[in-house]
Amino acid sequence: MALKTLSAKAAAALDRELMSTGAFSLDQLMELAGLSVSQVGNVGGDGLVAARHLFHYGYQPAIYYPKRPKNELYQRLVKQCEDLEIPFVDDFPAALESTDHVVDAIFGFSFSGEVREPFPAVINAMAETKISVTSVDAPSSWDIHEGPPKSGVGSNFHPNVLISLTAPKPLVKHFKGRHFVGGRFVAPAIAKKYDFDVPKYEGIDQIVEITDNQVKI
Amino acid sequence: MALKTLSAKAAAALDRELMSTGAFSLDQLMELAGLSVSQVGNVGGDGLVAARHLFHYGYQPAIYYPKRPKNELYQRLVKQCEDLEIPFVDDFPAALESTDHVVDAIFGFSFSGEVREPFPAVINAMAETKISVTSVDAPSSWDIHEGPPKSGVGSNFHPNVLISLTAPKPLVKHFKGRHFVGGRFVAPAIAKKYDFDVPKYEGIDQIVEITDNQVKI
Repeated sequence: MALKTLSAKAAAALDRELMSTGAFSLDQLMELAGLSVSQVGNVGGDGLVAARHLFHYGYQPAIYYPKRPKNELYQRLVKQCEDLEIPFVDDFPAALESTDHVVDAIFGFSFSGEVREPFPAVINAMAETKISVTSVDAPSSWDIHEGPPKSGVGSNFHPNVLISLTAPKPLVKHFKGRHFVGGRFVAPAIAKKYDFDVPKYEGIDQIVEITDNQVKI
Repeated sequence: MALKTLSAKAAAALDRELMSTGAFSLDQLMELAGLSVSQVGNVGGDGLVAARHLFHYGYQPAIYYPKRPKNELYQRLVKQCEDLEIPFVDDFPAALESTDHVVDAIFGFSFSGEVREPFPAVINAMAETKISVTSVDAPSSWDIHEGPPKSGVGSNFHPNVLISLTAPKPLVKHFKGRHFVGGRFVAPAIAKKYDFDVPKYEGIDQIVEITDNQVKI
């Protein structure tokens, strides 16, 4: 099975369509996306939902969340994690010392341009750590179409695992690790309209691993 | 492991707490509840969410939904099913002829009193069918505390499978089939406050089967 990729513009239009004519709420989409992320192993709001599910799976997540959007949904997602006593940490490099897995949910498919403070040090730490890193939709700092920056922050960041939500983005041609697709909620008609393939999920899984040469680039 | 039961009053208070101090939206709770239901095999809004997930699992669900609440969330859940071209059927007994499983999500834990039209014929059909029936939280027509009615509609309704959301309700002492608990999103502090046990879910499952003698009555 070959999977087509979805441009940043198309991915944004798809999100808008799912929340208008598709009648999904952002709460629903983020819940399903975060559940997919949690099933890969261990992103912004998707990261908070994933941390909550991971707690219930028996893991001991900690959250680094230095830039907090003020909107009500994000505030509720934070409260749901606080109620589980999931710790929020301020020092990312220090937190790396006491974990065995990182979920990189900093930037999503709408990222472009320069990495702003305080994230350069965080991306450098993820680039240099020996523990496994899973990025959601895009390794943070990567261009959605062009992949890793040619130089500077992120140029040496190659996460071990990538989970593409709904459909792979064009940057996957630069990615060499294990690749999953999640977000099992797209109607066939929508996939057809946006011209991407819904992968063949197994059983009740919310994710599916994509093996080499399955992505059309 | 023994599981305590949750009274109808406590279950309603828990729902209110999850949506106030717990910061969950109804969208999130219904998404997670419906996902649990879909994982049992195949309930109002929970039933709509379950039908959507079942479609994505590869099943061919059909929905009998004669009494439609006018609120916006239920309208969106219907639209999400319509977008998958899941058929809505008007004749429940006829629809039974062409399926191999029924999810009974008619009444929830807040039901009490008499079964009103058009549901007596539906409950009689579920009582008499030979195909497997899965009820959500309570077999429809059963009293949450007392179980099946002593006579009349529902007195002979014994579904094959029950999925209790969050915690079993007292009626489980009258239930003889396979019993699952779903709704893996309760914070330990909330479970303690409401004095029920969170069952030991395995792996990433959103449901867990409860074997005989595990429920405290």
